[in-house]
Amino acid sequence: MRTDLGKMPFGGDYNPEQWPREIWAEDMRLLKEAGVDMLTLNVFSWATLQPSEDTYDFSQLDDIMNLVRDNGMRVFMATSTGAHPAWMATRYPEVLRVEFDGKKRKFGGRHNSCPNSPVFQHHSAALAEALAKRYQSYTNISAWHISNEYGGSCYCENCEKAFRVWLQRRYGSLEKLNESWNTSFWGHTFYDWDEIVVPNLQSEHFAETRTMFQGISLDYARFNSDSMMENYKLERDAIRRVIPDAQISTNLMGFYKPLDYRKWAKEMDFIGWDNYPSYDDPYYRTAMCHDLMRGIKDGQPFALVEQTPGVSNWHPYSALKRPGVMRLWSWQAVAHGADTVMFFQLRRSIGSCEKYHSAFIDHVGTSETRVFRELKILGGELAHVGDHLLNSRTNAQVALVFDWENWWAIEFSAGPSTELRYMKEVMRYYEALHALNISVDFIGADSDLSTYKLVIAPVLYMTKTGHAERLKEYVRKGGTFLTTFFSGIVKEDDRVVPGGYPGELRELLGIWVEEIDALPPDKHNRIVWSGKTYKAGLLCDLLHARGAEVLSTYLDDFYRGMPALTRNRFGAGEAWYVATALEAPFYISLLKSMCDTLEIGQVMQVPPGVEATRRSKDGRDFIFVLNHNETEVLIETDRGMETGMVDLLSDRILRKGEAFGLEAKGVLVLTSGE
Amino acid sequence: MRTDLGKMPFGGDYNPEQWPREIWAEDMRLLKEAGVDMLTLNVFSWATLQPSEDTYDFSQLDDIMNLVRDNGMRVFMATSTGAHPAWMATRYPEVLRVEFDGKKRKFGGRHNSCPNSPVFQHHSAALAEALAKRYQSYTNISAWHISNEYGGSCYCENCEKAFRVWLQRRYGSLEKLNESWNTSFWGHTFYDWDEIVVPNLQSEHFAETRTMFQGISLDYARFNSDSMMENYKLERDAIRRVIPDAQISTNLMGFYKPLDYRKWAKEMDFIGWDNYPSYDDPYYRTAMCHDLMRGIKDGQPFALVEQTPGVSNWHPYSALKRPGVMRLWSWQAVAHGADTVMFFQLRRSIGSCEKYHSAFIDHVGTSETRVFRELKILGGELAHVGDHLLNSRTNAQVALVFDWENWWAIEFSAGPSTELRYMKEVMRYYEALHALNISVDFIGADSDLSTYKLVIAPVLYMTKTGHAERLKEYVRKGGTFLTTFFSGIVKEDDRVVPGGYPGELRELLGIWVEEIDALPPDKHNRIVWSGKTYKAGLLCDLLHARGAEVLSTYLDDFYRGMPALTRNRFGAGEAWYVATALEAPFYISLLKSMCDTLEIGQVMQVPPGVEATRRSKDGRDFIFVLNHNETEVLIETDRGMETGMVDLLSDRILRKGEAFGLEAKGVLVLTSGE
Amino acid sequence: MRTDLGKMPFGGDYNPEQWPREIWAEDMRLLKEAGVDMLTLNVFSWATLQPSEDTYDFSQLDDIMNLVRDNGMRVFMATSTGAHPAWMATRYPEVLRVEFDGKKRKFGGRHNSCPNSPVFQHHSAALAEALAKRYQSYTNISAWHISNEYGGSCYCENCEKAFRVWLQRRYGSLEKLNESWNTSFWGHTFYDWDEIVVPNLQSEHFAETRTMFQGISLDYARFNSDSMMENYKLERDAIRRVIPDAQISTNLMGFYKPLDYRKWAKEMDFIGWDNYPSYDDPYYRTAMCHDLMRGIKDGQPFALVEQTPGVSNWHPYSALKRPGVMRLWSWQAVAHGADTVMFFQLRRSIGSCEKYHSAFIDHVGTSETRVFRELKILGGELAHVGDHLLNSRTNAQVALVFDWENWWAIEFSAGPSTELRYMKEVMRYYEALHALNISVDFIGADSDLSTYKLVIAPVLYMTKTGHAERLKEYVRKGGTFLTTFFSGIVKEDDRVVPGGYPGELRELLGIWVEEIDALPPDKHNRIVWSGKTYKAGLLCDLLHARGAEVLSTYLDDFYRGMPALTRNRFGAGEAWYVATALEAPFYISLLKSMCDTLEIGQVMQVPPGVEATRRSKDGRDFIFVLNHNETEVLIETDRGMETGMVDLLSDRILRKGEAFGLEAKGVLVLTSGE
Repeated sequence: MRTDLGKMPFGGDYNPEQWPREIWAEDMRLLKEAGVDMLTLNVFSWATLQPSEDTYDFSQLDDIMNLVRDNGMRVFMATSTGAHPAWMATRYPEVLRVEFDGKKRKFGGRHNSCPNSPVFQHHSAALAEALAKRYQSYTNISAWHISNEYGGSCYCENCEKAFRVWLQRRYGSLEKLNESWNTSFWGHTFYDWDEIVVPNLQSEHFAETRTMFQGISLDYARFNSDSMMENYKLERDAIRRVIPDAQISTNLMGFYKPLDYRKWAKEMDFIGWDNYPSYDDPYYRTAMCHDLMRGIKDGQPFALVEQTPGVSNWHPYSALKRPGVMRLWSWQAVAHGADTVMFFQLRRSIGSCEKYHSAFIDHVGTSETRVFRELKILGGELAHVGDHLLNSRTNAQVALVFDWENWWAIEFSAGPSTELRYMKEVMRYYEALHALNISVDFIGADSDLSTYKLVIAPVLYMTKTGHAERLKEYVRKGGTFLTTFFSGIVKEDDRVVPGGYPGELRELLGIWVEEIDALPPDKHNRIVWSGKTYKAGLLCDLLHARGAEVLSTYLDDFYRGMPALTRNRFGAGEAWYVATALEAPFYISLLKSMCDTLEIGQVMQVPPGVEATRRSKDGRDFIFVLNHNETEVLIETDRGMETGMVDLLSDRILRKGEAFGLEAKGVLVLTSGE
Repeated sequence: MRTDLGKMPFGGDYNPEQWPREIWAEDMRLLKEAGVDMLTLNVFSWATLQPSEDTYDFSQLDDIMNLVRDNGMRVFMATSTGAHPAWMATRYPEVLRVEFDGKKRKFGGRHNSCPNSPVFQHHSAALAEALAKRYQSYTNISAWHISNEYGGSCYCENCEKAFRVWLQRRYGSLEKLNESWNTSFWGHTFYDWDEIVVPNLQSEHFAETRTMFQGISLDYARFNSDSMMENYKLERDAIRRVIPDAQISTNLMGFYKPLDYRKWAKEMDFIGWDNYPSYDDPYYRTAMCHDLMRGIKDGQPFALVEQTPGVSNWHPYSALKRPGVMRLWSWQAVAHGADTVMFFQLRRSIGSCEKYHSAFIDHVGTSETRVFRELKILGGELAHVGDHLLNSRTNAQVALVFDWENWWAIEFSAGPSTELRYMKEVMRYYEALHALNISVDFIGADSDLSTYKLVIAPVLYMTKTGHAERLKEYVRKGGTFLTTFFSGIVKEDDRVVPGGYPGELRELLGIWVEEIDALPPDKHNRIVWSGKTYKAGLLCDLLHARGAEVLSTYLDDFYRGMPALTRNRFGAGEAWYVATALEAPFYISLLKSMCDTLEIGQVMQVPPGVEATRRSKDGRDFIFVLNHNETEVLIETDRGMETGMVDLLSDRILRKGEAFGLEAKGVLVLTSGE
Repeated sequence: MRTDLGKMPFGGDYNPEQWPREIWAEDMRLLKEAGVDMLTLNVFSWATLQPSEDTYDFSQLDDIMNLVRDNGMRVFMATSTGAHPAWMATRYPEVLRVEFDGKKRKFGGRHNSCPNSPVFQHHSAALAEALAKRYQSYTNISAWHISNEYGGSCYCENCEKAFRVWLQRRYGSLEKLNESWNTSFWGHTFYDWDEIVVPNLQSEHFAETRTMFQGISLDYARFNSDSMMENYKLERDAIRRVIPDAQISTNLMGFYKPLDYRKWAKEMDFIGWDNYPSYDDPYYRTAMCHDLMRGIKDGQPFALVEQTPGVSNWHPYSALKRPGVMRLWSWQAVAHGADTVMFFQLRRSIGSCEKYHSAFIDHVGTSETRVFRELKILGGELAHVGDHLLNSRTNAQVALVFDWENWWAIEFSAGPSTELRYMKEVMRYYEALHALNISVDFIGADSDLSTYKLVIAPVLYMTKTGHAERLKEYVRKGGTFLTTFFSGIVKEDDRVVPGGYPGELRELLGIWVEEIDALPPDKHNRIVWSGKTYKAGLLCDLLHARGAEVLSTYLDDFYRGMPALTRNRFGAGEAWYVATALEAPFYISLLKSMCDTLEIGQVMQVPPGVEATRRSKDGRDFIFVLNHNETEVLIETDRGMETGMVDLLSDRILRKGEAFGLEAKGVLVLTSGE
């Protein structure tokens, strides 16, 4: 997003079209009081903008745009295509999706358009272009917001046809496709492209992630992500034709499985995302989402496009964000790379399903609420901090590999355990690094590794073409690599690499995995590491060292004594293998030890429940200290903090050796005095 | 039901059409032995009565009617339209329903007709009229029983079309509809009535009670209830045309959510209902159902149309009614307003899904069973009591508001808690009043309040037009009103009343609710009331007194000290607000205290597990004492009982000061000696 | 299966069509190393064999067959019709099934053909015949394997039409059908055959086993089983026309509810079945499956067609078979009547959903794995044992009745308890007999009873025509019969036998069951038997002795003192009745006592966790001793073992009076020295 404000944009979704015009002026007054300077407009107005197939009516939007411009606000301009108009569904039922179970939808909801409907493709791009033409002269448009929270999937006839075309492009011939999908199994050989049907509950699936042909299902996941990305690109290109230098994005959703965000990121000028943690999510999970959103665009600062000021109505229990939490979580976003702090929503709806989601301006309609007062304080802080943090970067020395196709493949797998979840396995490592206040970058299978001292790839089940070679090259030159059980098993088409697990990683790791034992949730094995015993579960590889050093072995069962943790010296570096899933303290112990050896430093030493992150710009560091506890904690400035730092929020200068209390939910943004 | 028997009718559903004729005479003999004098006939005989589209065949029913008349029995005459014939489904698939998920049904089951099928409407009314003509001369028909247990819903094309017509009548214009449904949200504006589709899993819903547009779903609930009520009225009017003074009803099902029984009650000559408590229902829950069924018809005695003599086969575990329970529960119905005691069924089927539901005459075919013997004793008691209780009334001083549209709206709401259930919240108050043996009337939003000392409206989420004014008027004149969290929020169209909660009730209650905190099931706050601490949960309003007196405050969390219980003096009366959901003993303590102050008396003081209710007629009271315990209890006559009362069942006279044992499951029907 | 090898066949499913030809020779080498001599071929090759409607291409199969013959292997030749080709689904959608909820399937999966599709029937039989013609000269074909694991059901229009024809054959007239289905209930009378629709979620069902018309659902279960059996017979007869003496079978699945295997068995030359116990199944459950598979063919030895060498990928947790377990479970099959030991699969797939199911040759591609080594040992043992065991028989004196129609009817029943499961009730008795090492035959309702001392029929709900008479005759002549609660209730059409339970068994048992009490899972009653108290639950019959001797009574509730266990002397024999479900130790105590009295001996006395079974041939006994424990046990030869027996596996001779250790998972196959 263009940061021409000289500060972080502050604001959120604004839907004046739901209100009589007499409210609009009052809105402007209240929002300015809170310090708002950026409005997301026009998110769901297609039916208003295009009341019939051959008519556009921009009159209401013109009035809103003028009001906003006259009040000095910036705009994050949406294209409104996240929900099609009712007339379109009635006239062209093809725009309606077909669900995973084969059910044809009727008009309703949002995210409701078939991505492969020519009618939808035509009308959505045309609307984006018409909006660009209409409002190209509004210099207060900071960026364009295509559609809204792309997601879901469709299984209609148009998708089926488009899938066949996509497959023809991918495979070239049916021979290649039959081989890749292993169709000789169960006699599924295809002799004509038209014999191929979408994989859903009517064909190859018996549940969302349970498929009989992994190759087919995996390709459909790719195809579905690509189809929606094409929708995005159609609109983006339509705007670009009119406004060549437009900043264009959409709002993503963190660890959202159906869309390969790393692939999408290449098509987006910047990443925007919507952060709605559940009331009981641990705060490191939110941090992990922020880091992923920063990671998919190789470290570029992102926009926090939506978060709730108070409650999220769609949560099972709309628990209030306690005093200070909204501010704390906003600064947490910034601490992990956000350059924009925005909310859903500015004024609360009075009807339909989001009316109990909170807003700057509540149903009571005044600024005399706790939530408003807290927002106003945050707005003031963002203004106070100004441009200090803009475009600063996180320079991590540890990378975590996260790959969407690997995610899909792992969870489509029939065996070895229905309990295996990719994100959970990645989180084991993230949680430990986060607890150690060590910065982490999320990278992909094709990312540059040269800047990292440590690369961790939990459950690297699918080894993409060339990835093993790049990892070897990285280790050979001195890098440290760590991977786990159920890695190196398959290639992109989910076919096993024969010759022994972990396939193409075997040489790098110096091991051979003969068998994989899946443990029911109530069963466990044990290992000893660094003098302590840890429970092991989920999967236990039965492996043989083939050059690797054995650092720990199983204590129980018939494979007692077999290796559970190995390290292989390879070139100038090392490749580690964790053969099972262990208790959380194991990961802290292991990673602390490895990072100490590799001289990867913690951002700062802080008490439990306190998060410390770093961003840097032009040689200057900004350290964020976030107290997630319910109580005050003591921060000691000599435990990693430079002397004479200043807190950008309070302007207070902290002397070396000083220890001071940071209140519950308190935030510091420290930098060296200028 | 006509009470021209001079006593309470006793009997139930009789289906001789399932049996060879040689059984019929034996049935008559056995039923007379048991004291049966009323038979519900012809409930599911459409296929027999109308074997093809243009033929009626009443020959079998003629024989049955003659048999029954010759044996001196009365008839509750059903119209048989609760299940259509197979030929109708084959010939006119439109009579078959479409389910909530869009699935078109085939022939099967019962309650299977689309209420908006013209074919069904035509044939059902025609059959009702033909029956009326055929049997108008049978003076032993006490009442007419339209269809059976109306229920369910349909989402077919005929319903979709009828829904649009219904909406046109309700809103007049699309502008008004778009405003009421808040369709500017998510761009759902309708430009043509034909763009509107039924709200189900194919359109606006993602679960039964989870909708994206509350306004649409709420209107469909109204429409569905109205559609079935129109079916009822069509048949009723057909009978009325032939027999102007016919008593006409149908059998309701207590707290049955899909149908607005209070609206239906206006169209019924008397209320009949089917009582099938689950094996583990507390007995106050059954009492509450009876009181609701009495309440929807403003206190008029109702008919207990169905209950099981022994087991209900469709329960997960067909636990036997223990000795005495069938009698106890029958008298419990009378204690709460029944003037008829009937059963499903008189002879057990030998085939299909209800063959393991019990009956007067079991599969063994004799009177030598425990169940038969108990029924015979009850039959004797009803004959012995004669006309004493007929048309007696419950004169309650406490009213509980229960409103179907409010029920629907609360449970369609997206937020603040998926745990919120209207009936459960109402039950908290009912349970306490019942434990105190204080009579309660269930009233609606439009009921007269003038006869009550205390009106309680738990979770009055939807404040219907004029209701707030009527409540204010009631309190102003000296009434006491109590309501709770999540009240006064919306109007009929589920749009929020802006300006602060609880909307139109704000002035009456003297409070402003700023925020609502939803607590997960494992979390709680606490309050102190009358020296005791109670756990609070589900929802906690964060409110400010605006004139109201604060009687209790929260003990925990950041809103510690904010009001949790308030009382506002308003005119000559008081308006109470309970800001959260509390433990059961709180309600007993609060209501005991309020009733004491208001001089609302308990019917009688009885030991725990004993229920005491009162009915009155011509200045004479009848007190029912029902021992639900597994053991004998001691009843003391000086604890509220008048001196010299007589038990109508045993004719025993009870002296003041006397204490006597009432056996487990025992019943007394006391009245002043004549 | 032809046992012309002079030993038990050893091998399994082999799918070379999934591999390049260079692998084939290596496969032959490895399989011979393991001792494999029997290959199941061609299970899923339809798409390869018939690439279009009018073309067969046997070239690849020719090569495979020649390879196999040249390597001296036998073949279990499959017909490939377990999954149709994609082109067939595209060209003839009628071959695709319709699911229970009415969903039409698309191409995908396996077991995917509608059994009543004329297209499928034609093409499957034609393929079977073509295969027979092509390969009739291959003398190494030991048997034919029709389709694969028949199962599932279909609800399409072709099935609906075929169902009506099936019904016409069964009932002759609609009058008879209406009577049998009790259609006067709920007015379901049919006036035309075409009014009858398939019973599924669109019509009479509201869940898989919850139906509104038991008669309809029961007939559909019969029809569905018959339909698939007709598919089997079509293919079988096509082969038989070409090869009159072919041995023909298919692979069954143990207690598989949808198919009436006893009826199927009459059409199969031998029984083959696939044994995939869950990781937590008790070993007596597997034993019970084997005994059932032996029982449906009246004791004839069966083929173990499939089991996994290591893990089953479709289990929730693919737990490894621990060392020795694969061997132990293979011998357990033999111990219960198997004459063939085969596996799925010989080489592991690298793609699709079974690639993580284990195999002789793993992904690593060598014989250097634990699993291969264990298989090779087993192969050696089978060769060593040679023809000793072939065709030996289990001569049991106890029979357990297991009837598929009874299974369906019990679980379609609406009441008395949703917890009632037929197989679980049968297992209570099997478990006790197994723990006592008493041989058991599973018999059907029409089996000869004359060879048994004790016949047990748990929950004989449906008494088929003539069964009661045969049971009486059996007891009259001195037999002992035992049955339980919920027996004798209905006839084949699920209509109750009036006159009192247990219907036609009343005289034989000398009791009358007046009522049935269903207990929720957390409730129980108690009885005393042989000095010990046992908990009773699920169902408690309230019964009266009518000639029977009362052996035990209830201790609790209002039916305290009523009979819970009775014995009726009838002719020269006895008929026992167990009126409720009891704890496991009760059954051991009861059956021990009964067997002692009847002089039914244990095979051998062994420690807990050890199984002992007997097979006999030509007057010679073979005793199998299987140690399922994790630890060694002490076997004492004087506890039932004859002196001087030899262990066929180790050739060790055991002296009388000797006690020796049998290792964990160890196996003995003892016989008298020759």
